[in-house]
Amino acid sequence: MTPSPLILITNDDGYQAAGIQALARAVASFAEVYVVAPDGPRSGAAASITCTTPVSYSSLDKTLSPWREMKGGFYASSGTPVDCVKLALEQIVPRKPDLILSGINHGDNASVSVHYSGTMGAVYEGCMKEIPSIGVSLYLQRGQRYEDNPVSDDTLTAIAALCRRVLEQGLPQDVCLNINLPVAHKFRGWQVCRQARGQWSAEWVTATHPFGQRAFWLTGQFTDLEPEANDTDFAALRAGYCSIVPVTVDTTAHAAIRTIQNLIS
Amino acid sequence: MTPSPLILITNDDGYQAAGIQALARAVASFAEVYVVAPDGPRSGAAASITCTTPVSYSSLDKTLSPWREMKGGFYASSGTPVDCVKLALEQIVPRKPDLILSGINHGDNASVSVHYSGTMGAVYEGCMKEIPSIGVSLYLQRGQRYEDNPVSDDTLTAIAALCRRVLEQGLPQDVCLNINLPVAHKFRGWQVCRQARGQWSAEWVTATHPFGQRAFWLTGQFTDLEPEANDTDFAALRAGYCSIVPVTVDTTAHAAIRTIQNLIS
Repeated sequence: MTPSPLILITNDDGYQAAGIQALARAVASFAEVYVVAPDGPRSGAAASITCTTPVSYSSLDKTLSPWREMKGGFYASSGTPVDCVKLALEQIVPRKPDLILSGINHGDNASVSVHYSGTMGAVYEGCMKEIPSIGVSLYLQRGQRYEDNPVSDDTLTAIAALCRRVLEQGLPQDVCLNINLPVAHKFRGWQVCRQARGQWSAEWVTATHPFGQRAFWLTGQFTDLEPEANDTDFAALRAGYCSIVPVTVDTTAHAAIRTIQNLIS
Repeated sequence: MTPSPLILITNDDGYQAAGIQALARAVASFAEVYVVAPDGPRSGAAASITCTTPVSYSSLDKTLSPWREMKGGFYASSGTPVDCVKLALEQIVPRKPDLILSGINHGDNASVSVHYSGTMGAVYEGCMKEIPSIGVSLYLQRGQRYEDNPVSDDTLTAIAALCRRVLEQGLPQDVCLNINLPVAHKFRGWQVCRQARGQWSAEWVTATHPFGQRAFWLTGQFTDLEPEANDTDFAALRAGYCSIVPVTVDTTAHAAIRTIQNLIS
């Protein structure tokens, strides 16, 4: 008998988030599921790691957890999403995972937001450890909550089918997947696309501490710099499709190497 | 008279680090320098942003600062390196910077370490804001301190010359630079190269809290997976050269799009 694949699941919204519970349920029928997730929100954590303080993790009480019917292990950590993956791989899982999933993030990680994303930070980490890794995020408008706009059952079924394909066929070397989902009652299909060029602006709102000091809350307006393109993640989302961007952990701008050689010569 | 270029400088080691002081001094003769840096160490911050709490910044006492002879402004922030760039651009600098510098980091950001790097997080941010941006890091062996291995004067001169070239010619769209320096008494030259494939392992050391709980310190061994290559950042560093990797903020693995289309069909 072939053993069940082992799937490690993390996120950046914390283990109590609705999104990670949906993602775990989507794959639990065919996999042994290990959840190792932050103990609270880590939005905007990117691929950050905890260098200056120690981190810890603890086993969740399975009888109280949303995963009580599942086969696997369930842990919360004081660290970042990347810390969770590093802890899981060296300290927690009984063997190398066959797949790493991160999400479902409450908010999109399309276009340049991929750079700030704790969801995708964990995915990069899995990819650098040569494990097929997929991030999944839900594109919510400001003020929309995941709980009021849950990912539809047929979309979760499509995600599970994609995971099985990746388990069978793997992913190219140094490539992981950044999936973004539109809010939709029904799954319309996948579009494989590239990261849209985009820019955040108007990023700060001034707050005043009760003692009078100024402080700044991060917010911002996102602008798609390629609104006419039809091959970007945002174009797919606007058309109601689920976007898949294959992402590489090789940051080199290979096409720019000659330009930079000329610049220094 | 052409006004001096405005250069924004940040880092992830905090405004008191020796590296950022060296970098500011290297360009102060031809530029107006704004330093907006974290108020303490943020190693491993990647491109993280502060989403759940407000951040603040304050002007440093110029008479006490290492920058007291320079023209410009000097600030410390409670935020991450990316927060520092975002704060600087919208709240602090008098006009859009002509160049953003980050570093000199006390430790390398070659190969996959670029993903964890707060130094390079700030550089991505500048690049996404369409400002030429350069990260500079010093490759220290474990236990080596920047203070005992300062970047040589002729290397600082070469960095300043490179900055002037970039100020004149700009950088390609969506491309920034990741520079790593070897410890060396003399500047041997630049090598434009690609990011080495690499992997971290043995990443945790178990610690025990005085009350008995286990905790984990992040550490690790880095392995260059391409030790025979001669076109990578680590190859350049091993040969005593200063490496320049042109880095793109487009994470798309363009060459993998067809493979993923086949995977889902």
